[in-house]
Parts: sequence; structure tokens; C-alpha cells
Amino acid sequence: MHMIRAAVAGASGYAGGEILRLLLAHPEVEIGAVTAASSAGQRLGSLHPHLTPLAERVVEETTPETLAGHDAVFLALPHGHSAAVAEHLPDDVVVVDCGADFRLRDESAWTTFYDTPYAGSWAYGMPELSVGADGKQREQLAGTRRVAVPGCYPTAVSLALAPGFSAGLLDPEDVVVVAASGTSGAGKSLKPHLLGAEVMGAMSPYGVGGVHRHTPEIEQNLTGAGGDQVTVSFTPTLAPMPRGILATCTARLRGGDDQRPTAADVRAAWEKACADEPFVHLLPEGQWPSTGSVLGSNSVHLQVALDQRAGRVVAVAAVDNLTKGTAGAAVQCLNLALGLPETTGLPVAGVAP
Amino acid sequence: MHMIRAAVAGASGYAGGEILRLLLAHPEVEIGAVTAASSAGQRLGSLHPHLTPLAERVVEETTPETLAGHDAVFLALPHGHSAAVAEHLPDDVVVVDCGADFRLRDESAWTTFYDTPYAGSWAYGMPELSVGADGKQREQLAGTRRVAVPGCYPTAVSLALAPGFSAGLLDPEDVVVVAASGTSGAGKSLKPHLLGAEVMGAMSPYGVGGVHRHTPEIEQNLTGAGGDQVTVSFTPTLAPMPRGILATCTARLRGGDDQRPTAADVRAAWEKACADEPFVHLLPEGQWPSTGSVLGSNSVHLQVALDQRAGRVVAVAAVDNLTKGTAGAAVQCLNLALGLPETTGLPVAGVAP
Amino acid sequence: MHMIRAAVAGASGYAGGEILRLLLAHPEVEIGAVTAASSAGQRLGSLHPHLTPLAERVVEETTPETLAGHDAVFLALPHGHSAAVAEHLPDDVVVVDCGADFRLRDESAWTTFYDTPYAGSWAYGMPELSVGADGKQREQLAGTRRVAVPGCYPTAVSLALAPGFSAGLLDPEDVVVVAASGTSGAGKSLKPHLLGAEVMGAMSPYGVGGVHRHTPEIEQNLTGAGGDQVTVSFTPTLAPMPRGILATCTARLRGGDDQRPTAADVRAAWEKACADEPFVHLLPEGQWPSTGSVLGSNSVHLQVALDQRAGRVVAVAAVDNLTKGTAGAAVQCLNLALGLPETTGLPVAGVAP
Amino acid sequence: MHMIRAAVAGASGYAGGEILRLLLAHPEVEIGAVTAASSAGQRLGSLHPHLTPLAERVVEETTPETLAGHDAVFLALPHGHSAAVAEHLPDDVVVVDCGADFRLRDESAWTTFYDTPYAGSWAYGMPELSVGADGKQREQLAGTRRVAVPGCYPTAVSLALAPGFSAGLLDPEDVVVVAASGTSGAGKSLKPHLLGAEVMGAMSPYGVGGVHRHTPEIEQNLTGAGGDQVTVSFTPTLAPMPRGILATCTARLRGGDDQRPTAADVRAAWEKACADEPFVHLLPEGQWPSTGSVLGSNSVHLQVALDQRAGRVVAVAAVDNLTKGTAGAAVQCLNLALGLPETTGLPVAGVAP
Repeated sequence: MHMIRAAVAGASGYAGGEILRLLLAHPEVEIGAVTAASSAGQRLGSLHPHLTPLAERVVEETTPETLAGHDAVFLALPHGHSAAVAEHLPDDVVVVDCGADFRLRDESAWTTFYDTPYAGSWAYGMPELSVGADGKQREQLAGTRRVAVPGCYPTAVSLALAPGFSAGLLDPEDVVVVAASGTSGAGKSLKPHLLGAEVMGAMSPYGVGGVHRHTPEIEQNLTGAGGDQVTVSFTPTLAPMPRGILATCTARLRGGDDQRPTAADVRAAWEKACADEPFVHLLPEGQWPSTGSVLGSNSVHLQVALDQRAGRVVAVAAVDNLTKGTAGAAVQCLNLALGLPETTGLPVAGVAP
Repeated sequence: MHMIRAAVAGASGYAGGEILRLLLAHPEVEIGAVTAASSAGQRLGSLHPHLTPLAERVVEETTPETLAGHDAVFLALPHGHSAAVAEHLPDDVVVVDCGADFRLRDESAWTTFYDTPYAGSWAYGMPELSVGADGKQREQLAGTRRVAVPGCYPTAVSLALAPGFSAGLLDPEDVVVVAASGTSGAGKSLKPHLLGAEVMGAMSPYGVGGVHRHTPEIEQNLTGAGGDQVTVSFTPTLAPMPRGILATCTARLRGGDDQRPTAADVRAAWEKACADEPFVHLLPEGQWPSTGSVLGSNSVHLQVALDQRAGRVVAVAAVDNLTKGTAGAAVQCLNLALGLPETTGLPVAGVAP
Repeated sequence: MHMIRAAVAGASGYAGGEILRLLLAHPEVEIGAVTAASSAGQRLGSLHPHLTPLAERVVEETTPETLAGHDAVFLALPHGHSAAVAEHLPDDVVVVDCGADFRLRDESAWTTFYDTPYAGSWAYGMPELSVGADGKQREQLAGTRRVAVPGCYPTAVSLALAPGFSAGLLDPEDVVVVAASGTSGAGKSLKPHLLGAEVMGAMSPYGVGGVHRHTPEIEQNLTGAGGDQVTVSFTPTLAPMPRGILATCTARLRGGDDQRPTAADVRAAWEKACADEPFVHLLPEGQWPSTGSVLGSNSVHLQVALDQRAGRVVAVAAVDNLTKGTAGAAVQCLNLALGLPETTGLPVAGVAP
Repeated sequence: MHMIRAAVAGASGYAGGEILRLLLAHPEVEIGAVTAASSAGQRLGSLHPHLTPLAERVVEETTPETLAGHDAVFLALPHGHSAAVAEHLPDDVVVVDCGADFRLRDESAWTTFYDTPYAGSWAYGMPELSVGADGKQREQLAGTRRVAVPGCYPTAVSLALAPGFSAGLLDPEDVVVVAASGTSGAGKSLKPHLLGAEVMGAMSPYGVGGVHRHTPEIEQNLTGAGGDQVTVSFTPTLAPMPRGILATCTARLRGGDDQRPTAADVRAAWEKACADEPFVHLLPEGQWPSTGSVLGSNSVHLQVALDQRAGRVVAVAAVDNLTKGTAGAAVQCLNLALGLPETTGLPVAGVAP
């Protein structure tokens, strides 16, 4: 089989850099055009000094011409820019969009949270997501040519809680999620509060009160898993680490006092959902996920517990926001789209300590 | 007035060290005996190299004799050891216990969460805590000679949510709290998961599912603020920073859909509770607390928002777990016990960036 | 005595913020005008949320009018701006400049390393600096009205090595210094390599090869201590911490093989230089300085060892770059200028862990 | 070709974990016995939760029996234990020792720095090391069956300076090195100063004054590169990061004032040494190495500058202490020993940001 030729548009940012890092290790892909906007003309070695094998590559401008002639194009652009780039790409090219543009199936949810026009929706790139009692989102991705890669928070939250919703154990009202993200999640934005001196030693929330744009995406995923409309109180926080998301997700148990699910019911539901998943690992009881254990990998570490006093399930997921939370999912979907083994080229072990 | 002579028992740990740091800056206190158990005989300069002015002090053993002859004794001992030390101290000595031993007023709550015998309860050392609609815990502390310093998590959580409970705005069922703590909160324990190489870049939860010992203390405080029994789902997480707690606390609004409190009601309740408090600062709307801003200070930074979609109030508090969360509260209570101005010797500005 | 009224020009940066933090704790100072350039009009609480007591202060523009009417003015301006501001200030006002403008006594050194015109030199604000065999720089500071606060690296390096030069033990040729600084040393500059995600987990050098602007200042200080012209190879590095400088400084022992100074000679020289210094602490033999131990304090922790095999003395100093390295030295010099006890208002204990 | 079956002895520590991480990605190796001492019987998932694919493996005891039947055995044992284990392994098994036991060729150097008996020396596992004007150490490694993996500091320092010594540009006397290491370099030792709360925000030196055990290994390598006996003043420091070494290395230029090498001579020497090396990358002039760029990779990033004023060359190397500094070098040597392409299975791109 000939090598898959892949371009990366928006290569100067953290997501673009991570896609390139993973493609370097992918045995079936060769890296084609590497493009950006204001960084065009720079050596990749000055933008991403960690990508040693690509150091001498010069970044090109993102245009229909530079992106032409590839089997796959990854888009790592600011929100609102993907549709304009994608419309120039042939139908048979696999386009994997790491932005938000094509994630939401509900136009009104989009317009409530975003200020650019609704662009439609593509196949949602979370293969492991439970869809109803027995299905998985994976089925929608085989052979597709347009993929919307999930947001980093929705990846962690949805994989943490979907097992309980698909099993009918959880009350769709009053889900509460607090998640901590490493600062690469904010991108390479030059803002004072993202400076190292401000970030180290500091945790702070942002987007509080239901205004974070990942809220409707989380609700879309959990609603799809369980069937009933889910409402989420979601609070993201910024943590003093470069990468990683730890999502602490709680939901009330369904049912009256005499028919509440047991701890065994809960464990069984999560075990069922994680069985046979190559990247989602339910840890042994009593061991809790750490973002440090999934650094640089496409793995999701999960654990769940039942708080009998509070009547709530607490499910926790750890992912690397740049790998499984963005670029790893993008490559995983490329594999599915092209009929390659889903795990091709993707690290499962994290870099620790 | 003569100087207050204060001893610190359990001086080798992080809490003991922080008490000594604050006492060095206290204009009315002179530091008397500095005692410990296995570290007795060591130079303080080798245990706490940051306490430069005390470097040549030698730590003594904690005994009735070494603690005798002081106006005040701070206890920074492992849980379960305070009662035995305190019983040798005269009634007119101010004893400030930084352990859990005397915090809980409900014996059954104690025995559910701790494995040592119930020792009783002392005046609870959180002056700013709302007690009912108009009272504050401060009134119980003036002139007292026995103080139980609150836990670090309960400090952040209680000050974040008590304003809403004392104003009758919040539903006592289904409070959900996720809090992140710097690793000094785990003390100087020599455990692999607390090594720097493991901690940096890593966030992980622990004590999940309602089993953390601070849960009943949080419930005691919030129940006291509002009158109705509060139930809390509490999940603590370990964050890659030396100090600081960020508590993200949510509670459902009370009342049916047509009589829900408004955002203005919420703001007014928190403003009322924080007015005239020297250490608790409600930030301007839109500015969120950061643990980095309170480092080394006795300040609490608060913010609150109403999530209309989810029907929940989200209140966030940032404290330094070792200062306001432990040693600062201890000194603040000493001030109250002795009739000094409450703020004497306590820093309000944090050390940042 | 009436309170000293002090203004801070350039209050929006890290140095300005640290001056304000220290002045809040100074018993003889009241904070007057707080000024800046582009940040004028903003609440101080949004620029420096840790300065809780000053949160409602509004930053004024730096002009002759706003700075008028003070007993002391601190300048925390970008290099090259101090002279223009200072010329409007009356001769009897204490002006403490935290920039580089008035540090170098040699015009040619200035023009080699800076691109603005030479402004002259003021009393050099390092009281503890050995000047010759028996003198200290302190004598130049009593009663002065113009002070040039030293650079952060020169503070650490000069206090580490000057004892050996003033005692005649060290060869002035071939001094080698490698120093690590927390990222606040780079100021609040919005540059990609200072973003938290890039800084955490990363160490890198900069200004390598003798081009860093602190090089001539270090040479000026060490030459003044020993009498002979000193040449330094100085390499600064950026370390993943908010604050702190660790300077590792080595110099060859003077003399032939048969007249080399002994370890006892070395220890004696450093002990003599540190005796009676309130802020410079020579640690007991075998204990090495850590930046963590001096955080937020005006202390300098020092240690020295003799490497017999290599024929070199290794002296290491730890300081907080923002406190003793900038703002603490500024307040210390204000105290000397006004005849207050040198230590007034300055913390000696660090904030640790 | 059949898969190479490799055992890892001492798998519970950081070096052992990193070897396993790399072997998981090695296309020609299958992981055989995983052994340890006190951790025998534990799940690997509890010791190294990041090694997700190996989570259910149970660690065996290190014995001749458990290590029998492999093509290769990696030893990641405390110093002084390797000889006893190796003597039970057949001559045709590739034994790769990550400890110090077989690194030094000079018995007197060993006995000066170590307290266990001298065990001899094996082929030194640094393929890129210049040996004389034209040779490389690589030649000694092809087909060997016993390899001594270099120490982490010697890797960074030797690769930084050897180009200058092999080209005859540097004075062998008076080399000065200051290196910063992430805290994983200290291993999983349960010591208070390695706790996260103490490490974060803190830099400190250790082993100062020529006593660190890597000193004779550095001198052996640089002496071998240039031919004359090299003396090094080496100061290691502990930096607040999990991984990484940044070595700042300086040496005087050889020759009198009129025959000093030029900047072009220096650049040419380093370019020659790095040409064709798959893992050693000389950065473009003006770009300096960062440990963040080599995280998790086998790459060495180098830069060199000439300080004309000080008459010194400054060469800086960044490596990951666990990868190229230990486990990566071990796998690289396995490849050479077995005649595989030297880069097989080894990542060149770092994980950043």
C-alpha cells in the first residue's frame, strides 16, 4: 500500500504540533504540506523545537494550492475557519477538523455559544462514545471522509459518564462536572494570565456559570448515550501543568430509595463500556486516574465510585488534552476512515514520571 | 503589655513550620518552646531552612515539662494526639489545636470517619463562618481558651457556600464540591505518589465517594449556616503546586421555577456575608479567584455565579491551605482569644507571581 | 515621626507589584501615588490580584504631577526611562531606581551592553557588598537621596563571591558563573517562550557567551571587592519556577600549589563577610541553599566549598529575584537613606514549602 | 527474524519503567521477565500506572531463574548489584547495565568515588562519543554482549564538550560544568527534600566540590576525546521538573592570544562531530537547547558559543535523563549489539509543550 500523504493546516499551534508529532510515528503516513497563517515562512524548528526530524521544514501559507494533492488534511485552525478551508478540498480526501465548527448537531446550541455562522455537523470523532444501550460512535466513522474531532473537555467528561447513561443508571438532570486542564488547553495565546510566572503554583476557574463552549457538546454526547436530555453544570479550571485534563464528573443515581442501582451495578456498567476498548482503561477498584499517567498517550484512564451518602456516582477521567483530547483522536479517526487498524501509530503508554 | 509567650508542639511538620513563620512576624508574640517527637534534638534550620531567624534553635521533645510556662500552645500533631497533650495544660492557657480532634460536635460523625476515640469538641476556629441568618462564629471565640482550628478544605468550602445557606437561597440536598489542593496538604509524608517527579504535571483525585474525613466537617458548617441538614458530595484532588486550595462548590437554588432567587439575590447574599470581613474578599463580578493570589496570606478570595441553565449556584474559594487553611486561622483565633485586634500579625497580601 | 509617603512608578509590572507588597507591611510607610504607563486607569486589583488591600486603587499615569509631593519615589520602569522621570523630582526626595540606568560607573561598559545614552551612576544599593578588605557598600548609602538598586543576578553572584575577593583568596581571571532564574525575572513580557505550557518542565539558557547585560555589573562588583579587574563567564538559565535565583559561582584559588588557601581559610573569609549581616546567611557546612527557602524574603542563603581536585572555590547563593533581588533591596536602601533600622518592614523568613 | 526476548531487572524504579516504555514501542522486541526485589509480587499497573499495556503483569523476583531464557537482559539496579546478577547470565546474552558498576576503566577512580569493590569495565554505551580526532565510541559497541550505559550527567556533558576536545580546541585544565536535573534523576527515593511540596519552586545544588560520582566518568570521556587528562569542576543542581538535564559546560580555548581558535573554528568542530548523528542535533546558531524539547525522546540538543571576553567556549546540552540519559541509550546499545538499525524503536521527537 502506498503511504498516506497528510497535510496539516494550522501547524504553528499546540494542536498542530501534536498532530505532527504523532504522524512522525505513524507507519502508514508521510507528512506533506505543513501550513499556517502568520507563521508561514518560518522554520518548523523555531516554532516547535521538539519536532527535531522536521526542524528544517519551512511552513507554507494555508491555501487551496498548498493543501491540494493529499490523501488527508488535518485542520487545526481557530474556530470558524474550517468551513472555508474545507470547501476547497475534494470529497474523497479525508478531512479531520480539530476545531469546534462541525461538532454540534443542534444549530441553536451553536448559535447560543458561538458567534460565527453555523456550519453544519460532521461525523463526530469519538469512536468509544456509547450511543444508546449497545452502540458505539465508532460505527459512524468507518470510511467517512469528514470528521469533527471532539473538544478536549468533552472527551474526558463523555467517556467518564456515558457508561452510566447508556446503562440507564443515571439521572439526566443535575450532572455536575468540575475539570482541570493543563495550560496548553488555552493554546499559544499571549495573555498575561498564561505566563509561566502566573500559572505555576496557581489554580483558577474560568468560564463559570454554564458559559463554557464545551457545555453543549458534553450535553449532546450524554444525551445521545442515554436518550434523555441531559443538563450539565460544568466548571473548567486551569491547573499548573503543561498538559492533561482531570475531569471529576458526578451524577445522581436514578430511581427511588428502594430501587437504587448498587455499587455492583455501577461497576458492571463501566466494565461493559470499557471492555474491548483499546484506549479506554477502567482502573482496578481503588486506583484513581492521574493525568501524569497518560501524558503524550492516546489513553483514557477511568475510575468510578458510588457515594451512598450523597446518592451520587463519581466518575473521573484523565486524558492528555493534546493527544487523546485532540491530535490522538484525530489520528485515530483517520485510521478508522481509511480502514487501518484503529490503534495504528498511537501510543498507549504515557510518558512518566 | 508583656509579650505573649507561645509554644509550638509538632513543629517539624508543614503546619508547625507555618505557625512559626507567622509568629515571627507577630508583634505581640515571642516564640517559646519548639517541640516535636522523632525530630527532637535537630536544629530547626535543618528541618525548616526557610525559618532563617530560628535556624539555631534546637527542637525539644513534646512533654508536659517543655510545654509548661507558656501563655499559648499551638498543637500541630497527628490526629488523635491532641487530647493527651492538652490535658496537661492549665485551663488559662490558650490551646489552639490544628488537628481534627476537637472539630466535630457530633460523636457519631467522628466515629464514622475516624478510628480514634471521640475527644469532644472545642470552640470552632472559623470566625467568619455564618451561623444562622445574622450571626458569625466569631462570637464564640472571644476569650476562649480552647480552639479547634478548621480543616483546610472545610475552610475554603464553608466560606464559599455559607453565605448562600445563611440567606436561605440554597437547597441543602445535593451540594457538590470538587476541590484541588497543593501537595503540602498531604503533609511531609514519605510516600511515592508525593515525590516531586510524580506530582509535577499530574492531577489526581483521592478519597472519592464520600470517604474523605473533611466531609462531616463541611456538612456541620453548612448545616449550621442554614439550619437544615446539608449533604455534600465532596471530591478532593491533588494538584501540582506546593500550596493552595481551590474549591469549586455548587448547590441547587431553592424554590420552584417561579420563585427562584435571582442573580442579584445571590450577589447580595455574598456581599452581605463578606462585608466587614478583614480576610474574606468577594472579588468584583467577572474576576475569579486564583490560589496564586493568596499564597502565604490569610486571605480568602471568593466569587459566585448563577448558572441559570443548570439551576445551580457555583461559588469558588481560593485559600492557602497552610496559612488561612491552618496556621493563619490558628493565629487569628489566638488574637480573638486574647482580645487582640483580629488581624494582628497576619498578612493580607499574597506573594505573587 | 510622620509616615513616609512613597510613590511607585511602573506599578503594573512584577517589580512594582513586589514593592507594593513590601510597602504594605512597612510600619513607617504609607503608599501614595501608584502609577504606570499603558495600564493607567485600571484597578490595581485586576493587575495584581494578590495585593488585596490595594484592590480598589486606580493606577494613575506616570507624570511629574502624579509623582509630586512624596518623600520617596520608587522607579520600576523599563531600562532607559528613569533619568527622564527622576529629573523632575526634588533633590531631597529619596529616589530608588530598580532599573539598570544608574548602576554602572564605567560609561564604556554601559555603551557596550546598552543601546540608550549613559545616564551616570547613583549610590549602588547593595549594602552588604564587600568593598576592599574591610569596607562594605552600606557606608555609601546612609542618607543618600539617589539609589541604583542592583540587578537580580548581580545580587546573588556578588554576595556569593565577594567574600573571597575581598579576602584576596581568588584569582580574578576566569570566574565562571551559571545561574538559574525563575521566570518572573523576564518580567510580564508576552512572549511565546514565557507561556506556562512552554516553561513548565523546561530549562534553557539565554544570553550565552558574555552578552547578558548583568555581566559588567557583576565584574564591577567583584573588581571593587578585590581590587583587581575581574573577568566573568556568565550564563543565565531560565528555570521552571515563578521566582528565585540560584547562582553557582566558581573561581580559581590564588597562589601556587604550595601556597594555596585551605578550606579553613575559605570558610573564615565567608564567615567574616557574613557576620553581623541581617539578611545574608552562611549556612552550616554541608547544607546548601535552595531558592525555595528564601521565597518572598529579603534573605540571601550562601554556602561555599573548596574543590581541591579542580583548584576552585564553588560558592552558591539563593535569593528571591523579586525580593532581595529587586524590591527588598529597594526598601532596604530606603531604610538606610532615611536613617531607619535597615531591616524595617522586611521579611527574613521565606514562605515554604 | 524472531522477536528478541528481553528481560528487565529492577523494573520498579524510574529507569526500569522507562526501559519498559521504550520496549513497548520497539518493533523487534518482546518483553519477557519483569523483575524486582522488594516490589516482587505487585501488579506493574500499581508501580507504573502509565504503562497501561503492561498493567496486569506481575513483577517477579530478580533471580537467575527468572532472568534465564532471554536474548537480552537490562539491569536497572542500585549501584554495586550488577556484577552478581550478570555472572549468572550466559556469555551470548546481551547484558545492558544501567548502573555505574562497569563504567569506569580506572580502578582508582572507582575506589575514590564508590564504596563497593571494583567490578571491571564493559563497552561504554555512548555511541556518539568522539574518541580521538576521528573515531567514535560506536565502533566498540557493534556486536558486543556487555554494555555499560553511561550516567545521565556524563551523557549531556560529554556530548556537549567532546567535539571541542577531539578537535584540539580546548584546554583540558579548568573545565567548569554546572548542570540542572529533573528530580527523577534522584530515583524513587523516599526523602523529604524530594517531596513535591519541597521540590516545586525550588532549585538547589548538591554534591558540590567535586564529590559527585559522575565526575570521574565525565573526565574519562573528555580525556578520551582529546588525549590529555581533563579536570572538571562539576556542580549538579536539582531543578523543579520531573525529567531533563540541562548541562552548561565551559572550557578555556587552547593557545595564546594570537593563535586562539575563532568562532568559525568552534562551529566547524561541533558541526563535524554532529554530522550524521541520528540523535545529536546541533541547533542553528542563536537557538539554545531546552529540556522541554527533548522530553521522552532519545535526542540530544546542542548549542555552542564563544565568549571572547572570557576566553571560554560555552556548550550547552539538553537531554531527557531517563531516555537518552538512561533507557534510550540502553535500547540504542541493544540495537548496535544485535546489528539492528541504531534508531530502531527510539523516538526522536520530544513531547512538548
